[in-house]
Amino acid sequence: MDKKITLAHGSGARATRDLIEDIILKHLRNPMLDELNDSALFELKSKKLAFTTDSYTVNPLFFPGSDIGKLSVYGTVNDLAVVGARPVFLSLSFIIEEGLSLNDFERVIVSIKEAKNNAEVEIITGDTKVVEKGKCDKLFITTSGLGISEYSKMGSISIGDKIIVNGAIGEHETSIILARGDFKFKANVLSDCASLWGVISKLIKSCGKIKFMRDATRGGVGVVLNEIVEGNSFGIEIQEDSIPLKDEVKAISELLGYDPLYLANEGRFIMIIDKDEESKALGILKSSGFHDAVTIGSISSIHKGRAVLSTKMKGVRILDYPYGTQLPRIC
Amino acid sequence: MDKKITLAHGSGARATRDLIEDIILKHLRNPMLDELNDSALFELKSKKLAFTTDSYTVNPLFFPGSDIGKLSVYGTVNDLAVVGARPVFLSLSFIIEEGLSLNDFERVIVSIKEAKNNAEVEIITGDTKVVEKGKCDKLFITTSGLGISEYSKMGSISIGDKIIVNGAIGEHETSIILARGDFKFKANVLSDCASLWGVISKLIKSCGKIKFMRDATRGGVGVVLNEIVEGNSFGIEIQEDSIPLKDEVKAISELLGYDPLYLANEGRFIMIIDKDEESKALGILKSSGFHDAVTIGSISSIHKGRAVLSTKMKGVRILDYPYGTQLPRIC
Repeated sequence: MDKKITLAHGSGARATRDLIEDIILKHLRNPMLDELNDSALFELKSKKLAFTTDSYTVNPLFFPGSDIGKLSVYGTVNDLAVVGARPVFLSLSFIIEEGLSLNDFERVIVSIKEAKNNAEVEIITGDTKVVEKGKCDKLFITTSGLGISEYSKMGSISIGDKIIVNGAIGEHETSIILARGDFKFKANVLSDCASLWGVISKLIKSCGKIKFMRDATRGGVGVVLNEIVEGNSFGIEIQEDSIPLKDEVKAISELLGYDPLYLANEGRFIMIIDKDEESKALGILKSSGFHDAVTIGSISSIHKGRAVLSTKMKGVRILDYPYGTQLPRIC
Repeated sequence: MDKKITLAHGSGARATRDLIEDIILKHLRNPMLDELNDSALFELKSKKLAFTTDSYTVNPLFFPGSDIGKLSVYGTVNDLAVVGARPVFLSLSFIIEEGLSLNDFERVIVSIKEAKNNAEVEIITGDTKVVEKGKCDKLFITTSGLGISEYSKMGSISIGDKIIVNGAIGEHETSIILARGDFKFKANVLSDCASLWGVISKLIKSCGKIKFMRDATRGGVGVVLNEIVEGNSFGIEIQEDSIPLKDEVKAISELLGYDPLYLANEGRFIMIIDKDEESKALGILKSSGFHDAVTIGSISSIHKGRAVLSTKMKGVRILDYPYGTQLPRIC
């Protein structure tokens, strides 16, 4: 019979210790985590550091192509990567709903292990809380990350800079919509959830004129473009027919009336780079496995403070900064 | 009319930005947090760092003497302090239940501001998620902390070392039991929630022979004592009549059948120190406002691997390492 998480697992007493040793340390052990001290102590050679945090509240916990475990590692790794920092250490804090299957919890931990090995980071400190049934959505994970800055400073954005995305968009959110089964159709769409540090480390080694990077998670590419232009004396113009989109994502978006530009991604980022380095950057992205990486537009002197889309019909549409989301919560 | 948190506040779009600017940045702003970047970037002079994380899930959010805001700052500050690290930077990640009053959320943020000013730390990065009504217990806060180690290394625990607690125990958990109103009595008990870095920084400056420090949170003093002895070739003997206890906590514990040694604290820590430095340490604690600080026992060569209590009746009781908790979840 599948065992369940109980409130005792969150008591701080023996049952908590057993859960940590039998499941968490079993898969994630390293000398610092093994200490189970109040804080992990360590030395870092670099002085310039990056620090970030994110809570992962995705439902369902497992979805095509990924799960909350990988998401909670890669999401935080990517928040370090896009500021040009090599991810080094993570903390993980679990809030678990009473009644969660211990097998499911262990599946998540195993997935975290694969992701942290792949991203070459260590989990060095953590916390585990259990709340009553109905007080949490199965499992929430909050991951904080510590990285070492490897890019001196991003340049200032200028007119003519190119805007690149590293692959087809909207697949993460589409995979979750499909996994929920609220809509009665099936399609083969996998989450794009992935660590971006590998490719970003190559980009920052070769390109000296990167102006901006941000992973297009909640709110998608559309919100990131608005964050870039807001209050600035430049605008953004992107070409509709350049936006990389898988057929299935396009079809589902049309069917449900969603704009894929606002769908969440977990392995896609927007990069702004001097036009002199556009082809070099695209070459690095493609040779790193991001075959659909493409320039989607550029920084423009017109449409100040706005992001606009040049449509296939030669029209121009302003890309809103939406108030909320177009979809049920997915994170 | 009191406004409420909606799912739009967690969308990552305009409503999220408004919530961050109108409430979070309004009270917590500093140059790093203002950037609203994916990660905060900074330089730290020291190489030896401490990193910790904790999720705060207390119900109710507000209770006599404190609230989830202060708790989420001091709890993490204390986890850094007890390893001898000066708390410097915090991250805050909010998981908010749809429908939470915006006024209550702002009250929590104002409380966080007071606590971070008092503890002399800065909140430099964060995240905000909103989940549907019934998927969270009003508000969960996960705080990670980064500190600079200021104590070279704790010594090894030896027979004869003294065990000190910095004040009367059990007041935090008792205050929450009372605030919940599940039991039909009233008493004036305030949470002991407080930052410990101030006094610990004095202790580590003056005492060279500290062997161990741990804040006695979930599971209380009883669990900490068990964590100290487990698997070790020494034991712990504490004297029942030396345990500092407020009359109200004693009365409520007797009435409800709880052992105060296992009640959670948020401003109490256990310190093990060489007997040569016992009186110096007690002097520092008392002169720092912890008037009830006291030696409760010592490291003993008998009872190996066990913590035992010498009772007022000259008996000896083994202090269990309990499996779960004696009480409803409070954190």
